[in-house]
Amino acid sequence: MSKKKISKLPKASLVIIGNEILSGRTIDKNINFIAKRCDKIGINLIEVRIIPDDKECIKDTILELSNKNDYVFTTGGIGPTHDDITTESIAYAFGVKIEINLEAKKRLIAHYKNMNVEFNDARAKMASIPLGAQLIDNPVSSAPGFIIENIYVFPGVPNILREMFLNLEPTISGDQNVLTKNLKVKTPEGEIAFIIESVQNNYDELIIGSYPFFNPPDIGSNIVLRSIDKKAITNAFNELIEKLKKGKIPYEID
Amino acid sequence: MSKKKISKLPKASLVIIGNEILSGRTIDKNINFIAKRCDKIGINLIEVRIIPDDKECIKDTILELSNKNDYVFTTGGIGPTHDDITTESIAYAFGVKIEINLEAKKRLIAHYKNMNVEFNDARAKMASIPLGAQLIDNPVSSAPGFIIENIYVFPGVPNILREMFLNLEPTISGDQNVLTKNLKVKTPEGEIAFIIESVQNNYDELIIGSYPFFNPPDIGSNIVLRSIDKKAITNAFNELIEKLKKGKIPYEID
Repeated sequence: MSKKKISKLPKASLVIIGNEILSGRTIDKNINFIAKRCDKIGINLIEVRIIPDDKECIKDTILELSNKNDYVFTTGGIGPTHDDITTESIAYAFGVKIEINLEAKKRLIAHYKNMNVEFNDARAKMASIPLGAQLIDNPVSSAPGFIIENIYVFPGVPNILREMFLNLEPTISGDQNVLTKNLKVKTPEGEIAFIIESVQNNYDELIIGSYPFFNPPDIGSNIVLRSIDKKAITNAFNELIEKLKKGKIPYEID
Repeated sequence: MSKKKISKLPKASLVIIGNEILSGRTIDKNINFIAKRCDKIGINLIEVRIIPDDKECIKDTILELSNKNDYVFTTGGIGPTHDDITTESIAYAFGVKIEINLEAKKRLIAHYKNMNVEFNDARAKMASIPLGAQLIDNPVSSAPGFIIENIYVFPGVPNILREMFLNLEPTISGDQNVLTKNLKVKTPEGEIAFIIESVQNNYDELIIGSYPFFNPPDIGSNIVLRSIDKKAITNAFNELIEKLKKGKIPYEID
């Protein structure tokens, strides 16, 4: 499959850090949000990893992905408890020290004062940031994330992550938007595989995916065309529809 | 954090193969199912990766994880369309050929005959299996998965994957069940971090996780104890409750 054009986009990977996802205790709610935002702003999300709260594993994963990507986003493990070890592990990966960041501490003190709760040692831990890292604002609960090298460190709590990510998004530069066109075919994909393939073969500039669903009697496939080339996607879409019509295969445009 | 006892369990990784998850088009529904089943049957799921439908990437990921794990589960990319390249990529990883598996073909022909639909070339692709691989039965739609080395290859459609996984589960040996105990604290985790840590420090044989939730005014944390040692988990749980009572911190037992 050709990815000529799509592969020109900046690359990103996402690392979900948390034993609770791996044990099945918690259902991840961040992957799809970040995947959609990357798609929207023209960043090619090339990989997601879910890893445990383990210092060596975090270090190895971060260093490997830092080399392979323009952006690495992490979620989880920056709270106040003993199993929140993301910050220290990332500092360790880059060989830098952690220090109390005065700006982060100021924000936390103000936040807790405002909520009328105590600013204790555990909470002070959330102001510990690797030396030289840049803070990521947290408009919801104050405890900041941070950026070090090309690593963007976010908390795991979904509604906090979302606000922080959206807030930061204008500073993350994707080159251009990826265009998509969707089509639903209510025929098993085995019937239409040759049609999709023949259209794909005519266009280097786009990727066609076929994503089957199977909930009898509702059987079929969602066909998705993706490209950054508007002409290519329009032409390919029209060609696909023509071929479906010719084959008398019913379809719906999403 | 000590993982002495938990780490004795057989290790597994899960690889989700599919551009549609990385683009945000589809929300994954398989990770949590497999994570929970692994937890249930005593397998330590150490990592999940979501990767694109890309031959070299699939090969590299499979070989790396095959070496690090007792089991590697994959989902996605074994259907009939041009973007289903998991089978050929895994065969390529192990340097083996793909052939039409006669048993798989027989099952597919019978299935499609029964459904009164044509068994065409695209569907025949689903009978192509790496040489020497063992079939995984598909009680829903016949197209089999397969096992090669320690790689277990499943389709991506969630309700089909589930039946196939549950069907195969008795042949996958986890050593013993992991015990868990849960507790909900309706106090921000920053208030109780020192209590959890003090209990964790007393027990090498278990892992305590703290998973905050933040939906004001509902703010708090789920505390999860995990161990394969029944005595340790009972004692630690009792100690935790005592300390919460002493600190006048309200809790609910799940």
